[in-house]
Amino acid sequence: MSAPGGGPEDVRLRGFSERASLEEVARWIAAVPAPCPIEAVAGADACGRVLAPRVPIPPAPPAGLRAAEDGWAVRAADTVGASGYGPLPLAVRAPGAPLGPAGAALVAAGAPLPEGADAVLPFAAAEAVAGSLEVSTAVAPGSGVEQPEPERRALDVLARAGRPLRPQDAALLVALGLGPVPVVRRPRVRLLLAGAKAAPGAASPPDVDGPLLRALVARDGGEVVAETTGLAERGALAAALAAPGDADLILVVGRTGTGPDDVAPLAVGDAGTLAIHGVALRPGGSAGLGTAGPGAVPVALLPGAPGACLAAYELIAGALVRRLGGRAVALPHPAVAAELGRKLVSAIGVVDVCPVVLADGRAEPCGDPDAPGLAPAVRADGFVVVPAELEGHGPGAQVTVRLHALLPFPDPGAPP
Amino acid sequence: MSAPGGGPEDVRLRGFSERASLEEVARWIAAVPAPCPIEAVAGADACGRVLAPRVPIPPAPPAGLRAAEDGWAVRAADTVGASGYGPLPLAVRAPGAPLGPAGAALVAAGAPLPEGADAVLPFAAAEAVAGSLEVSTAVAPGSGVEQPEPERRALDVLARAGRPLRPQDAALLVALGLGPVPVVRRPRVRLLLAGAKAAPGAASPPDVDGPLLRALVARDGGEVVAETTGLAERGALAAALAAPGDADLILVVGRTGTGPDDVAPLAVGDAGTLAIHGVALRPGGSAGLGTAGPGAVPVALLPGAPGACLAAYELIAGALVRRLGGRAVALPHPAVAAELGRKLVSAIGVVDVCPVVLADGRAEPCGDPDAPGLAPAVRADGFVVVPAELEGHGPGAQVTVRLHALLPFPDPGAPP
Repeated sequence: MSAPGGGPEDVRLRGFSERASLEEVARWIAAVPAPCPIEAVAGADACGRVLAPRVPIPPAPPAGLRAAEDGWAVRAADTVGASGYGPLPLAVRAPGAPLGPAGAALVAAGAPLPEGADAVLPFAAAEAVAGSLEVSTAVAPGSGVEQPEPERRALDVLARAGRPLRPQDAALLVALGLGPVPVVRRPRVRLLLAGAKAAPGAASPPDVDGPLLRALVARDGGEVVAETTGLAERGALAAALAAPGDADLILVVGRTGTGPDDVAPLAVGDAGTLAIHGVALRPGGSAGLGTAGPGAVPVALLPGAPGACLAAYELIAGALVRRLGGRAVALPHPAVAAELGRKLVSAIGVVDVCPVVLADGRAEPCGDPDAPGLAPAVRADGFVVVPAELEGHGPGAQVTVRLHALLPFPDPGAPP
Repeated sequence: MSAPGGGPEDVRLRGFSERASLEEVARWIAAVPAPCPIEAVAGADACGRVLAPRVPIPPAPPAGLRAAEDGWAVRAADTVGASGYGPLPLAVRAPGAPLGPAGAALVAAGAPLPEGADAVLPFAAAEAVAGSLEVSTAVAPGSGVEQPEPERRALDVLARAGRPLRPQDAALLVALGLGPVPVVRRPRVRLLLAGAKAAPGAASPPDVDGPLLRALVARDGGEVVAETTGLAERGALAAALAAPGDADLILVVGRTGTGPDDVAPLAVGDAGTLAIHGVALRPGGSAGLGTAGPGAVPVALLPGAPGACLAAYELIAGALVRRLGGRAVALPHPAVAAELGRKLVSAIGVVDVCPVVLADGRAEPCGDPDAPGLAPAVRADGFVVVPAELEGHGPGAQVTVRLHALLPFPDPGAPP
């Protein structure tokens, strides 16, 4: 009953004789061709997107200085020697007109300086008295004037690979007047769901994995472009896998285990290549990887039990989505250091994803990784990944907790 | 030139004589009626939303146990005494039929147990030999069987106020078959933008604050429902403020400073009440708060300079969005502890928002809070909030860095 070509065996009714390590999984993922092609979007729509490595540097902004703050436009040289004890008088000119020697003109933050001006004096540094301005503070050339150079240099930071643009990053692209910018296209993900197992004649249980995965894929910058459910039969699943359409990635959900009806790994073999089935991960140990269809589209097998589906997405499939989208492959969860409140038991030989609650800076284990449902992950603030070579951690051990962010984020303590 | 009713003064050409503390700002925000009304959404669409405090607990699930793992459905009592040295034989029955005494039937994870079965034996714990099953491990009743109770108890965690639902949370609502769930409506935010200041006859600079604020409002769970730009005149701005439509919050952007054309605070007074103008915050010190229109809709004034707009949104307006949306008001940025790589200078008497880069666990200040543009925030990994009573921190000081992490919860959208 071995699969042809030395691939993973048929594990139905027998169990996994061996499982791939997460290191093997990572190597397989690192060999998938990526990222997705480049497309152009407006800077205003670029939040959450990843810039293509080389962004064209914009042309120099139009000549002319702009005020960085409200105040008086002046020639800095005219203020040399001014002090509270010896104020220097300047003549107040009409805004907009060229500024002659010893002149000052009102200017608003963001507005162009009048010709001849090279600095902006804040209101607190001068007092207007009957058409004259008594300057009590000297300013240097460029003081209070917008400096466009830092903005352009900051662009280099954005081109750093793997960083989704934050609100201020996208706004900078707009400020620089770049026009459409090249970003990595969002990975298109196709969901093929076997559907929950129902008693004969009973109503089907709700599709839990579909909404779970749609939200997770969106978090990682991908989009679910197609979702098909009820693919419980080997033939139907293989046919869907063989025609992936324009998907960059297929997630097959359910029918991955050791039961007689766990046909998903066989269907991947039918439609392409099953590279890995069975991963040393708990929960999520029946996950797998392969390719399907004429274009050898990457496929991830995810268990149907929602808790296992979540863990296998986080540790395996999510890395594929991020890699295809040009993001860093590493877990995207904010990591915080915490002390274990009590012993955390894990299995040797498998990587355990252990849910924990954070309270007063301590991490308390809050559920069995083997629980089939979502309750542990819902109760948890985050999770601890226990490496395969450890049997767990003792109470008081320092661990890294990966936060199930959304908000709110626990505060590590006020600054001194 | 004092505003009537003891409100903030007209600061144009004079500067702020006093500024409100962030504590005063927080007290004002805490008095705004909130949250927004409740609406019902499907569990599958609830990711990123905040549950109303009381969620109806669902009815008990349909009677009948389900397998939590693949294996053999058995009566646990029939396995008592089984061991590797003394396996007990059970008769293999057809799946689906009631399980008689000393019987076993194949069952898949998620499928209903046959009548009479109360446990699932993993494949590794038995060996099928010619119609008989040799059981080598005893199991307890309920072993390998789904436990619906934890899922329902986890629902209580979700009803905790102020927590946006994460992917697994929304999936749990689906799993419990709750139907539409009550959530806080997304706060509707109206943007009124004065527009950038252009030289006479020159093309208008691009609208940077609009995209910046749309992304930030979305991060905080709100939605920008209307955006009007070019509101540089007091009359036009006051008219827009007096007719807020269905907005829950208005953000007035630009024209908040001390220049002659900084009419935004006056327009708020014209259309309602200006409660605060000038905040002891850097950058963002010209921010303000008030109400407008017949319904006294809350209004936040934000500076037009993008760097200052960002800081004032983060420290002031964002709290309003989160409060209206039923979220925790505190800063949503993940917080990490770090050691300062070098001295961080700040001004006494104002709260400084200081951009920092994180490298090797150390925080390095990377920009002047007074820089008008976005470059410091773009270069930064996060920011340190220095309290008003401090002049900064010395090198080596432990500080809390708030990460500018993009933890987007883009709307995953409806299933395709």
